[in-house]
Amino acid sequence: MVGDEPLGEHEIIELIHKRLTVMPEMPVPFGDDVSAVPLRAEVAILKTDMLVGATDVPPGMRLFEAARKAVVMNVSDFASKGILPSAIVVGLGLPRKLATKESVTEIADGLNTGAREYGAFVIGGDTNETADLIISLTLFGTTRNALILRSGAQDGDIVAVTGLFGRTAAGLRLIFGDRKASAEMRELFLDAVYSPKARLHEGLALHGSDYISASTDSSDGLAWCLHELARMSKVGFVIDKVPVAPEVEKFASLNNLDATDLAFYGGEEYELVLTVKPEKWEQAKALVKAVDGCLIPIGRATVDRQVILELDGTRRLIEARGWEHFKSQL
Amino acid sequence: MVGDEPLGEHEIIELIHKRLTVMPEMPVPFGDDVSAVPLRAEVAILKTDMLVGATDVPPGMRLFEAARKAVVMNVSDFASKGILPSAIVVGLGLPRKLATKESVTEIADGLNTGAREYGAFVIGGDTNETADLIISLTLFGTTRNALILRSGAQDGDIVAVTGLFGRTAAGLRLIFGDRKASAEMRELFLDAVYSPKARLHEGLALHGSDYISASTDSSDGLAWCLHELARMSKVGFVIDKVPVAPEVEKFASLNNLDATDLAFYGGEEYELVLTVKPEKWEQAKALVKAVDGCLIPIGRATVDRQVILELDGTRRLIEARGWEHFKSQL
Repeated sequence: MVGDEPLGEHEIIELIHKRLTVMPEMPVPFGDDVSAVPLRAEVAILKTDMLVGATDVPPGMRLFEAARKAVVMNVSDFASKGILPSAIVVGLGLPRKLATKESVTEIADGLNTGAREYGAFVIGGDTNETADLIISLTLFGTTRNALILRSGAQDGDIVAVTGLFGRTAAGLRLIFGDRKASAEMRELFLDAVYSPKARLHEGLALHGSDYISASTDSSDGLAWCLHELARMSKVGFVIDKVPVAPEVEKFASLNNLDATDLAFYGGEEYELVLTVKPEKWEQAKALVKAVDGCLIPIGRATVDRQVILELDGTRRLIEARGWEHFKSQL
Repeated sequence: MVGDEPLGEHEIIELIHKRLTVMPEMPVPFGDDVSAVPLRAEVAILKTDMLVGATDVPPGMRLFEAARKAVVMNVSDFASKGILPSAIVVGLGLPRKLATKESVTEIADGLNTGAREYGAFVIGGDTNETADLIISLTLFGTTRNALILRSGAQDGDIVAVTGLFGRTAAGLRLIFGDRKASAEMRELFLDAVYSPKARLHEGLALHGSDYISASTDSSDGLAWCLHELARMSKVGFVIDKVPVAPEVEKFASLNNLDATDLAFYGGEEYELVLTVKPEKWEQAKALVKAVDGCLIPIGRATVDRQVILELDGTRRLIEARGWEHFKSQL
């Protein structure tokens, strides 16, 4: 036993879950994107996600953007369950140097802008002095729909995503390293890092239907969330298309990077990753198109419980890695 | 203008509130103990309060106690509105040195113990790496009752508290200084600091009635919350009894401290401070007695908008001070 090695985020979460008394009739199990409480006529949905200065606010990100991002991170989880957020409470931790009118105004504006962008209101919170910027945000909403969990994928279902991947990973490499990129690429990638969007319209459209069998958001990286869907649904996936953005391919070849890696192992991208019942594929696609989104098929669920990338006749395993607190470094 | 002075917590909160879009038909205004969302058949209640290692975890407090305290801090606000908490989501920030099996287990057990003590379940959360311990907890519950706000006190109402004050202030002075105390005092005061209780039974009993006109909890200190009730209800108070615990009086005289100061300006005490309609006083007292609690009258609401201490015929102002992040020091 190595005494000095800290537990990883996932070990910590597992350990905590084991110690907790499980609420009877929980509509959503531990470890899914959101939590839920049964009410009389509907189900209350809660999600808390903490933005931490040191790990979630890359250099060059303004406080307005950091506060807005804290909202987007949480809304993305609501999107993955098709829940419209209605209210937000904010736990704010400010280092002393940010306790200024200018900084606080920027943070408040970022929170409000993010909230209103997705139809929610900030209704309360708590302010504290902390060593680093902390925006611990809790989202609240309700639904009468059945919740689509991470655990419903079945053999033969089509795996689909709501957009292309790799822009955020490319953006972080621009910010943290000396990389080549055109002005256009730079703008696109930095925008992905500083002003992420959640796929709420797509999530709301799909979750009203019975076309999808499992759903999550991709904030921990595409590879990681495919493994999560596989693990919780007790299936595997064969992925036959890498949903990488064309500019990311160009950026990768300019900088001797692997575009597939940028797409699979990035994280902090807020696409939805879903499994669609094959007989409902066209209908699901039409629902997403109706809200100006797109649904890109990237593979199939399989009985064989591995996550495989199959391209041009060669097969290789997609590793179960993504960003993990205490373990990962950029 | 002094450029270097950080804003105080209350200035920060005020500034944020001014920048936020106000949700239509908010059942509880900004700045009350909890936030609320109207649902179809009931009202959803949310409260978030952040425990920060440096400011909320005094030396000698175990992680189990810190995690339980994070629950109690939030439950106390629910108690002040008479809301039974049903579910908790936790934003956890751990410094690397606390990412161990032992520490995480203690934190999980403290959260679960606190939750179950008051009838709630932890249903989800988020784990992050942070510079200092952060437990940002959000409580959820619902009610069909009308909510008793901070703003309803009227001239002539009786001000009452659910217990005696000063033990926590005495305990913190024991921890941070070289003070004299008997073994019995020491145990009592340290227990108040390390294992605080929320007055949930009292709150639930009173809020089912129409006997009370305003209500808050005393976590920011008795003086501060009297001023808050006065400000939001547009009344004043004449306090004619200092609800100080007898052991605190002894401790104060042993150590040349002012017992009244310890009772008024302590903070981190989780009593309820309420205003009771005078014609309903006996009924209110009986309700609290039925749940093994007590209701102690300490004064009256007045038209004159000052908060006055009147003892033995002499009157003095009670200052509007309590613990304030960025401004206060022990």
